[in-house]
Amino acid sequence: MPNNIALSLLRGLALVFLILGATPISAQDDTVWNSLDPKNTVYLQLKEGMVVIELNPTFAPKTVKRFKELLEEQFYRSLSFYRVIDGFVAQGGDESDIDDNPAIKTLKAEFEIDWPLKPKDKDEAKDWQPMSWTLVQKDDMFAPFTGFIDGFPAARDDKKAGKAWLTHCPGTVAMARNDDPDSSSTDFYIVIGQAPRYLDRNLTIFGRVVWGMDVVQRIKRGSTLDNGIIEDDLERSWISRMQLASSLDVSDRLDVYVADTNTKSFSDMLRKRRNRSDKFFHHKPPKVLDICQVPVPSRLEKASVRRR
Amino acid sequence: MPNNIALSLLRGLALVFLILGATPISAQDDTVWNSLDPKNTVYLQLKEGMVVIELNPTFAPKTVKRFKELLEEQFYRSLSFYRVIDGFVAQGGDESDIDDNPAIKTLKAEFEIDWPLKPKDKDEAKDWQPMSWTLVQKDDMFAPFTGFIDGFPAARDDKKAGKAWLTHCPGTVAMARNDDPDSSSTDFYIVIGQAPRYLDRNLTIFGRVVWGMDVVQRIKRGSTLDNGIIEDDLERSWISRMQLASSLDVSDRLDVYVADTNTKSFSDMLRKRRNRSDKFFHHKPPKVLDICQVPVPSRLEKASVRRR
Repeated sequence: MPNNIALSLLRGLALVFLILGATPISAQDDTVWNSLDPKNTVYLQLKEGMVVIELNPTFAPKTVKRFKELLEEQFYRSLSFYRVIDGFVAQGGDESDIDDNPAIKTLKAEFEIDWPLKPKDKDEAKDWQPMSWTLVQKDDMFAPFTGFIDGFPAARDDKKAGKAWLTHCPGTVAMARNDDPDSSSTDFYIVIGQAPRYLDRNLTIFGRVVWGMDVVQRIKRGSTLDNGIIEDDLERSWISRMQLASSLDVSDRLDVYVADTNTKSFSDMLRKRRNRSDKFFHHKPPKVLDICQVPVPSRLEKASVRRR
Repeated sequence: MPNNIALSLLRGLALVFLILGATPISAQDDTVWNSLDPKNTVYLQLKEGMVVIELNPTFAPKTVKRFKELLEEQFYRSLSFYRVIDGFVAQGGDESDIDDNPAIKTLKAEFEIDWPLKPKDKDEAKDWQPMSWTLVQKDDMFAPFTGFIDGFPAARDDKKAGKAWLTHCPGTVAMARNDDPDSSSTDFYIVIGQAPRYLDRNLTIFGRVVWGMDVVQRIKRGSTLDNGIIEDDLERSWISRMQLASSLDVSDRLDVYVADTNTKSFSDMLRKRRNRSDKFFHHKPPKVLDICQVPVPSRLEKASVRRR
C-alpha cells in the first residue's frame, strides 16, 4: 500500500509534465452543456466503435435533408471507408461498392451562406437578430475572421456581400465530389489530420464529429502512394450501421453533451488560450489561436445498451 | 467478369471524388529518396504495429545522445503511453510506472538553435555554407518563416540573432517537462492532432515519425476530462520494444526512405500546393501553405521479418 501511495505521488509529479500545455483542452467548471438534437444527430457504428456526428442544417440544408433520406433507407449499412489517407481524410459511402448501376442523385453545392450584416436602415435594424458567432481569430492565413457558430468551427468574410462557411478541421464531415461543384451524391469524408483549410468553400461541410474521434482515428488507412485507396475489401473499415438518433427509442440513444460555444465561459477559455500567461511558457507564444486547434468539449453521460 | 469490369469502371469514376484535393500528398515521380541513417533511426514497436522515428541531433544533440543511452539500456521496454489526448499528444515513457524511486537525470532545454546568417565580412562570407532550408511560408500566425530543414518542419526568425526551431506538427516527437525548462528526463510525446504550434520553442523536439503514423493513431486514448490519463494499466498501449536501427543486424532493419526536402522536385510540389490551379477549385484558395499540412513522402521498401 505505501508503495502504491508513493507510486501515485510520483505519478502525480510526472503528470505535471505538459499538463499546462493541455489544460485548456478539458472543459472549464462553468461550461454550459447542450444536449444534441436527435433529429440532427447521427450514430455511425463501426467495428472499431461508435462515432457521433452532429449535422448542420443551417449551413447545408439540402445536403442534410438528403443525407437523412439515405440514413432512413439504411443506405450506408455495409458500405466501407475505401479511401483513407492518414493525416488527411477517411472517405466512404460509395454505392458502387455494392450496386453496379446506382441511380445517382446529385446535390447542389452548399459551400457558404450569406452572413447578414446589421442593416443600415434604422427600422430594419430594430428587429435584426445577429447570428451566433464567437470570434477566435482575425486574419489567420485562410480567412478574415474565424470563430464558432453554435459549436461548429467557421469563418467569415464581411467584404461586399458577407459570407460565412464551415471550416475543414479534424472531425469535419463533408460531401466528396468530382470537378463539378454540384456533383456530390453519397460519398462523404471525415477529416482525420491537420486541417486542410485550402478545401474551405470548395466542398459542402454538413456535420462534425462530436464523440468518437479516437474511433475515427482507428479507421484502416490506405497507402498514400495509391491515393489512399484500399483495393482489398477485407482490409477496409466497414460501416455496420449509420442511423439518425431520432430513429431510435429514447432509451437506446446516447446522452452526448457538447459545450455551448456561445457563452462567456467559452469566450473566457478562448482568451486564456490566446494569452498563455502560465509560467510553463518559457517562450511566450504569439497571442493567436488556430480555429482548428481549439477543442470544443463534449461528454458522454450514458452509453446506450446498444453501444459496442 | 463483365460485372467486375463495370464495377471497376464505376469505382474509377467514384474515385475521382476528391482526388484532386489530395493529389499533392502522394510523391511526385521525380522525388529524390533518402535512406535513413540507422544511427538516428528508432523502431518503436507497439502491439498496434511498428513506428519509425527519425532523430534530429542537429537541433537536439544532448537530448538525442541521452535518448540513445536510454534505448541502449532498453529503458522504454514495457513502459506505456499513459497520457493520451485525442487531437493533441500521446505521452509515454514514465519510469515511475515500474520504478518507485527512479534516479532522474534531467536534460538541458534544446528549444532552438542559432541560425547563422551570411556574414557581412567578405572574407568570412567566402567559406560560409548556408544550412539546408526550403521555404514554405512567410508570416504564418506563429513564425516569420516556416520551412523544411532536412525533412523536418521548422521555423526561423532572422531578427537580431537568428534562431531556428523545429515545429510542433502531427508526428513531431518531443520531450515532456514540468515548469522548469531543464526538467525533461525520459517522458516523451508524439503529436497526434492539429499542430499545437503554441508549444514551439517551449519543448525540446528531437524527432519525427517517418513511418507508421496510422499505428500511432491507434494508441489508446484517455479521457480529456481526466487530462488524458489512463489510470488502468491494462487499458493502455504498451511499448513492446524501442530500439535504435543500428543496434539490429542489417537484415533485420526496415528499408524506409524519405523524400529529400532540399530538392527542386520538393520545391515544385510546394509551389503546386500553394497555387492550386486545378479546375476542382471552384473557390480559389489563398496562396498560402500551412507547414504542418505539407506531407513529406516516405515509403517502406522492405519490411523486416521482425515486423509485425
